[in-house]
Amino acid sequence: MNEMQRIVLASRPDGVAGPENFRLESAPMPEPGAEEVLVRCRWLSLDPYMRGRMDAGKSYASPVEIGDTMEGRCVGEVLISNSDRYKPGDHVVGAFGWATHGVAHAKALIPVDPDLAPVQTALGVLGMPGMTAWSGLNQLGKPKEGETLVVAAATGAVGSMVGQLAKLKGLRAVGIAGGPEKCAFAVEELGFDACIDHRQDVRAIREQVAGACPDGIDLYFENVGGDVLEAVIPLLNQHARVPVCGMISWYDLDTPPQGPDRLPMLWRAVLVKRLQVEGFIVSDFWHLFGDFRKEVGPMVRDGRIRYRESVAEGLEAAPDAFLAMLKGGNFGKQLVRL
Amino acid sequence: MNEMQRIVLASRPDGVAGPENFRLESAPMPEPGAEEVLVRCRWLSLDPYMRGRMDAGKSYASPVEIGDTMEGRCVGEVLISNSDRYKPGDHVVGAFGWATHGVAHAKALIPVDPDLAPVQTALGVLGMPGMTAWSGLNQLGKPKEGETLVVAAATGAVGSMVGQLAKLKGLRAVGIAGGPEKCAFAVEELGFDACIDHRQDVRAIREQVAGACPDGIDLYFENVGGDVLEAVIPLLNQHARVPVCGMISWYDLDTPPQGPDRLPMLWRAVLVKRLQVEGFIVSDFWHLFGDFRKEVGPMVRDGRIRYRESVAEGLEAAPDAFLAMLKGGNFGKQLVRL
Repeated sequence: MNEMQRIVLASRPDGVAGPENFRLESAPMPEPGAEEVLVRCRWLSLDPYMRGRMDAGKSYASPVEIGDTMEGRCVGEVLISNSDRYKPGDHVVGAFGWATHGVAHAKALIPVDPDLAPVQTALGVLGMPGMTAWSGLNQLGKPKEGETLVVAAATGAVGSMVGQLAKLKGLRAVGIAGGPEKCAFAVEELGFDACIDHRQDVRAIREQVAGACPDGIDLYFENVGGDVLEAVIPLLNQHARVPVCGMISWYDLDTPPQGPDRLPMLWRAVLVKRLQVEGFIVSDFWHLFGDFRKEVGPMVRDGRIRYRESVAEGLEAAPDAFLAMLKGGNFGKQLVRL
Repeated sequence: MNEMQRIVLASRPDGVAGPENFRLESAPMPEPGAEEVLVRCRWLSLDPYMRGRMDAGKSYASPVEIGDTMEGRCVGEVLISNSDRYKPGDHVVGAFGWATHGVAHAKALIPVDPDLAPVQTALGVLGMPGMTAWSGLNQLGKPKEGETLVVAAATGAVGSMVGQLAKLKGLRAVGIAGGPEKCAFAVEELGFDACIDHRQDVRAIREQVAGACPDGIDLYFENVGGDVLEAVIPLLNQHARVPVCGMISWYDLDTPPQGPDRLPMLWRAVLVKRLQVEGFIVSDFWHLFGDFRKEVGPMVRDGRIRYRESVAEGLEAAPDAFLAMLKGGNFGKQLVRL
């Protein structure tokens, strides 16, 4: 127990990220100082935003430096506590990165109640992705009963929550996902009104989304960009809202792709339909985290909100699981069990 | 006096609009019915939005039908009034289209006070363009003292008002305009802090705008699209606001232009900078027209707001003046004296 394992950023991606960008390392076990806590990580969360941290200076947050531990959050158990706030065995969420262990100031941790729901939900439906969905939908999307919402990556950690929350508010919810299995899950398990497979050309996606949205789209929760965005733009209604949460299909781009240039098409829609397009990051809304947990916690406990997990085993599996997720290979919230 | 003149839409443009899309016609003089008023138009307003009305189904409003009078507003004098609201000689604004005369219900007209300012300002600084600038800037742009605003078409009817209102609110105002004469006017007469010539490549525009905006851009009031938009995107600050009022450089597009595809670049900026991008049309804010005139009327009267007009003579000159305006050939608010 004198060593821990971690995965560091070995190099920056040149376009598409690959396994060569990561390296598994051993490191000395850290020792907690005053008011600090040593945590054994049990569940690591893998999230699309991490792709942005691998590039230099493209995202809101500072990039991960070459040789540094990949950024991330985990749920773990307290091993040693130098704080009154925690005792050994307590469950916490902390930003320890892709690592088996970590030390943090007690104030930087979020306590997890293992009786509310399985502890790893603090990384999913009751954690950052759930909070992202809840705040983007409500704060930017301004959903109104009877409206129609479309969300892509509909079985992912964020998209599945967006659709379920929208349904609970009385909206029509139409998902977009990759493949018939995910689409069936979205409708049958998550309660979406319809789900369209994005593995077809833009025109076919558009026709099927149009068929599933007879009154047009009032709220497009953007996770993906790319062809799905192009397909959806002409279907947006006057005064539609477009919270921009992610653009997973474009994260690997390092230069503008070949044309045609789709910017004028978007711009005309913004103008003519008076669209509200707004980017956000969940940390803008952390002050609402208590409200989120109070509202959504009971929904998870009593099964009104359902979720699915995709679990990789062992820290060494994290890079492949992450790269597969960027291509849509996960099915539900992507976790690594450590 | 049994005939009036009007200009009708002869055909829809195939891409770039041209003189062949218009036709001058005579028509019988209309007769006012009960509660109606016959008006002799004296000043016709030419505005970029009219380009959108020439295409089928691309804009917020219904298109002008082939053979119908081109849409537009004029200031004129009442010739015959069948309403207690107006008497002969009164000045009014009405939506009579590109025509020498028109009949309208008295309630559809806006009275013009000839003692406040020259009557044609009811088509410019104190009319629809002024109101567009005022409402887009304040309702969507949320300007704050000390921030930096950029607006293109800076000497046009809308842009010149946007910049001057921003200056009066304590913002740094940087204009973009076509050619050194317009740029000099923007700085010397309108009081912009700087004005950049857009008649150069994207990189040069960007460098010069960056130099004029040492603290970045907090508010980009969008009138033009195209290369100016591309130049400005990387200079936008976190939480910048982008009210989308027009895209004059793209109005003639009927198919997406060649690449590269600039949509991912915009989308990344929206996400990473949490931009607020929102389209609008002035009619969304007509309920504020009284507030606008109360605030801006005195500014025009006492010279805090300055304006410039580009005047074409005679209805038959309207098509050429309109087409030239779409290419930036006007200098200030484009009018036709009838």
